[in-house]
Amino acid sequence: MQCVLTPDTEGYDQIDSIATGASVLVEGIIASSQGGKQKVELKVSKIIVIGESDPTSFPIQKKRASREFLRTVAHLRPRTNTFGAVARVRNALAYATHKFFQDNGFVWVASPIITASDCEGAGEQFYVTTLISNSAEGGSLVKDIPSTKDGRVDWSQDFFCKPAFLTVSGQLNGETYATALSDIYTFGPTFRAENSNTSRHLAEFWMIEPELAFADLNDDMACASSYLQYVVKYILENCKEDMDFFNTWIEKGIIDRLNDVVEKNFVHLSYSDAIELLVGSKKKFEFPVKWGLDLQSEHERYITEVAFGGRPVIIRDYPKEIKAFYMRQNDDGKTVAAMDLLVPRVGELIGGSQREERLDYLEGRLDELNLNKESYWWYLDLRRYGSVPHAGFGLGFERLVQFATGMDNIRDTIPFPRVPGSAEF
Amino acid sequence: MQCVLTPDTEGYDQIDSIATGASVLVEGIIASSQGGKQKVELKVSKIIVIGESDPTSFPIQKKRASREFLRTVAHLRPRTNTFGAVARVRNALAYATHKFFQDNGFVWVASPIITASDCEGAGEQFYVTTLISNSAEGGSLVKDIPSTKDGRVDWSQDFFCKPAFLTVSGQLNGETYATALSDIYTFGPTFRAENSNTSRHLAEFWMIEPELAFADLNDDMACASSYLQYVVKYILENCKEDMDFFNTWIEKGIIDRLNDVVEKNFVHLSYSDAIELLVGSKKKFEFPVKWGLDLQSEHERYITEVAFGGRPVIIRDYPKEIKAFYMRQNDDGKTVAAMDLLVPRVGELIGGSQREERLDYLEGRLDELNLNKESYWWYLDLRRYGSVPHAGFGLGFERLVQFATGMDNIRDTIPFPRVPGSAEF
Repeated sequence: MQCVLTPDTEGYDQIDSIATGASVLVEGIIASSQGGKQKVELKVSKIIVIGESDPTSFPIQKKRASREFLRTVAHLRPRTNTFGAVARVRNALAYATHKFFQDNGFVWVASPIITASDCEGAGEQFYVTTLISNSAEGGSLVKDIPSTKDGRVDWSQDFFCKPAFLTVSGQLNGETYATALSDIYTFGPTFRAENSNTSRHLAEFWMIEPELAFADLNDDMACASSYLQYVVKYILENCKEDMDFFNTWIEKGIIDRLNDVVEKNFVHLSYSDAIELLVGSKKKFEFPVKWGLDLQSEHERYITEVAFGGRPVIIRDYPKEIKAFYMRQNDDGKTVAAMDLLVPRVGELIGGSQREERLDYLEGRLDELNLNKESYWWYLDLRRYGSVPHAGFGLGFERLVQFATGMDNIRDTIPFPRVPGSAEF
Repeated sequence: MQCVLTPDTEGYDQIDSIATGASVLVEGIIASSQGGKQKVELKVSKIIVIGESDPTSFPIQKKRASREFLRTVAHLRPRTNTFGAVARVRNALAYATHKFFQDNGFVWVASPIITASDCEGAGEQFYVTTLISNSAEGGSLVKDIPSTKDGRVDWSQDFFCKPAFLTVSGQLNGETYATALSDIYTFGPTFRAENSNTSRHLAEFWMIEPELAFADLNDDMACASSYLQYVVKYILENCKEDMDFFNTWIEKGIIDRLNDVVEKNFVHLSYSDAIELLVGSKKKFEFPVKWGLDLQSEHERYITEVAFGGRPVIIRDYPKEIKAFYMRQNDDGKTVAAMDLLVPRVGELIGGSQREERLDYLEGRLDELNLNKESYWWYLDLRRYGSVPHAGFGLGFERLVQFATGMDNIRDTIPFPRVPGSAEF
């Protein structure tokens, strides 16, 4: 807020000690502003400096600091216009998420963060352990790490008495509650130990994973569309000033783009039709386009940005080979009831599926993929006892923040980003 | 819901295949019930079995299963009355938490889960690493774990290039946002690698940590009281049926106890007065009572349950030696502006403080405690640049669920409890 001081202002003599980063208490009268930049300003009758700030050492100088630099002062960057706006819009998206699901009778379930369950599948997971430490002088000696007779890490001596990881998804746990309570959603952190230094990946990110009982893929697609339209509408209505800021400074036209999401129907397209569309486009893509291959980001963006002029697109019925074991087989024997929701700029924002609720099909799929059925005993129990058709989806919350704010790099959508080589603050 | 079938019901012949755990689709007419147990019942015109359940193998038999046993089938226990009710009340408490803070202008901040920050202090932390693995046949060989020349774990080769842990609190990170955006709150998982197998401890639990800018301890106490009264009132109004269930089956009188929380003023008491009260009580306690010693659970429960007849009690101004380094020193030089909110049965439910906003005092305290100031560079920056008086508190969400439902064991208040030796599902 613009604050106007005059020599009559009480505390006017302190004005020289007020620099960027300082905190002050001001009293005064709100009045319409003469300047064009703001509607109102504060005519200050009294000012008190609460916390000074040394202008020569304050890390964020008035000149525009680069995003890269601001990540090194992540404790101060929320004081800038951009990161303050990101924080508020992020907050509004989170609250709108809760409101949407609660208003529709979904129950929030805390899926576990640490898991020793074998069925999440190995690879790209962080291990959680108390077998090593850096608290003793210099940290653990490798030779002192508990080992078995054959020299391997002795997990039985670890905190959980077996290997434990950070979760990569709460879905399987969410299904246990959906098949007990009906519709549920999770909203919590998930993790990937993926060594990719891109503007689209984080090692720690928040996921929203609703699961609908007595529901098929159409219900799932309808829920995903309503959800996205609801939260986007919510920020357009409740974060006007911040959205204007993004529209002016971060991505011109973002408000129009978001309005389109709210107002236009989403395009529905089968995977097979999407392949035909891409082949027919005669466009040169970096990655090959062929039935059976997964769609890459360039394909997804072509479909939503070019082929359908910025409308969100839902692609459904993917080849079973490129999708997860738990997705429900379609009658054609080749595809599964999976769907991806694509949006301009970001590409895939939501991925979901109807889950295989038929015990024999699910066991068959585990066999085909050489997965160990024993590990999935509790997941299979959901199909053994009172199985119901159910479906759900997952949404990476930071991707949504990117989409809604126009921020280029996903590291700028979460307060303290965790990426390879960095978990500061 | 009681469903009444007659031989006229379509699908009546399937009745023999419906057992505990099965899922069915029923259609019919709601009518007032003849029986005393429920107000309405469903007169079923049509029934279809969706998912059968083999009554001989379904793990939860009709006879009352023990809580211990139900933890071994945590994927099915939400299908029981008790755990269904716990899940719904837990959900309502979570949503009421968001509503309370959002309605009062707080911004939700995602404090980081993985942290390599040195200032959380070592001990009782889980390490997060990719240096060890169990994915290769048999898992990592201990001798292959990257080591430095002197045989210690070589953290520079780990994912984050230094030791990283699971967070024990989001407070310090929360303060960075409170001093930028004003009032904020965190609501996320936190972790303790504490080897205690009690009914009050979890290795993974959810914490709510609001932080108020331009606020002192009185503001903090007022916020904690309003928050607790709001969420308790919310479940009494919105979870009537489930609360009746707890009142009848889990803890007789719980509704009256919770009504007292909503309606009665909280008692305010200084730590010094609390010590005097305990000494004057002439009661034999297991742990000694003396100015300078921390209050134990038995003391806290005596104060709230006996001395003040079930009213919540806030104790403030604790000796600085038994409290954390960041709490604001009072003028007496002996105590800090800390407060604990005690409730019957659970004891301490909320712990908070005004934070030391004066750079010189904070640095002095770090020196006194031999803590490394370098590690706290960013936390100290908040006092260097535009420092403001601020205060906050932390609340263990599962303790709140325990308090609100009467469940004895904290392992029964979270869907998939993590404790020493167990991170199943």
